[in-house]
Amino acid sequence: MRSLGKQLIVELYGCTRDLLDDPKHSERILVDAVNRSGATIIQPFFHHFSPHGVSGVVVIAESHVAIHTWPEYGYCAVDIFTCGSQVDTDLIFEHIRTEFAAKEISIMEVKRGTLDLPDREILHKPMEAVHAV
Amino acid sequence: MRSLGKQLIVELYGCTRDLLDDPKHSERILVDAVNRSGATIIQPFFHHFSPHGVSGVVVIAESHVAIHTWPEYGYCAVDIFTCGSQVDTDLIFEHIRTEFAAKEISIMEVKRGTLDLPDREILHKPMEAVHAV
Repeated sequence: MRSLGKQLIVELYGCTRDLLDDPKHSERILVDAVNRSGATIIQPFFHHFSPHGVSGVVVIAESHVAIHTWPEYGYCAVDIFTCGSQVDTDLIFEHIRTEFAAKEISIMEVKRGTLDLPDREILHKPMEAVHAV
Repeated sequence: MRSLGKQLIVELYGCTRDLLDDPKHSERILVDAVNRSGATIIQPFFHHFSPHGVSGVVVIAESHVAIHTWPEYGYCAVDIFTCGSQVDTDLIFEHIRTEFAAKEISIMEVKRGTLDLPDREILHKPMEAVHAV
């Protein structure tokens, strides 16, 4: 059984609260992490909630990286979903958890799209983006 | 232990392949599902890959709904991440799996942001969106 993608489901507790409430900071962290990992950014989108909290998604050619922050609890939820074998997901995780100075961490790795096919028949989503909708 | 959010990690196999390759169709399905569920849309973004495949995310006030499709395998990965108690996540799931005519389904539910606090001290992300970045 081979899988098309993998997803890291990351819980970061004890983060620096001010950083969690700054959408520009969150965007910079995720974009930097994606760029370092070898992934290709299609579109970042970050939103600030009132009175606090940020939701952000970076859609990448290899799927997405998402964050939702609760500054009031020093917590954020991070999803790192990639396909193919070219992206260093651990690097994305390490960059994000370091930048937010997380004190407690939980990670779950989930294989996505498990197919009963030989490797050579699994074609990953291509890197080249042709058109946005 | 209470959680701030919950996430449905959904695998849909045996879907109608043409539908999986149509970004406008995917967007309509996810947006309809979110609207029916009681969630509030902040921003949808959908992208079509060459030669095939769609990635789409609907950022909602309660977190996000995301899809990545592999039409060549009749498969798509769906994430339904919500916070608060006002959103009917099952309705989002049911709408998406019905519209793509999935023949095989796997669902995993993950609690996100587990806090050792009494209910009254858990304040969910507010519905009102103040400003986008």
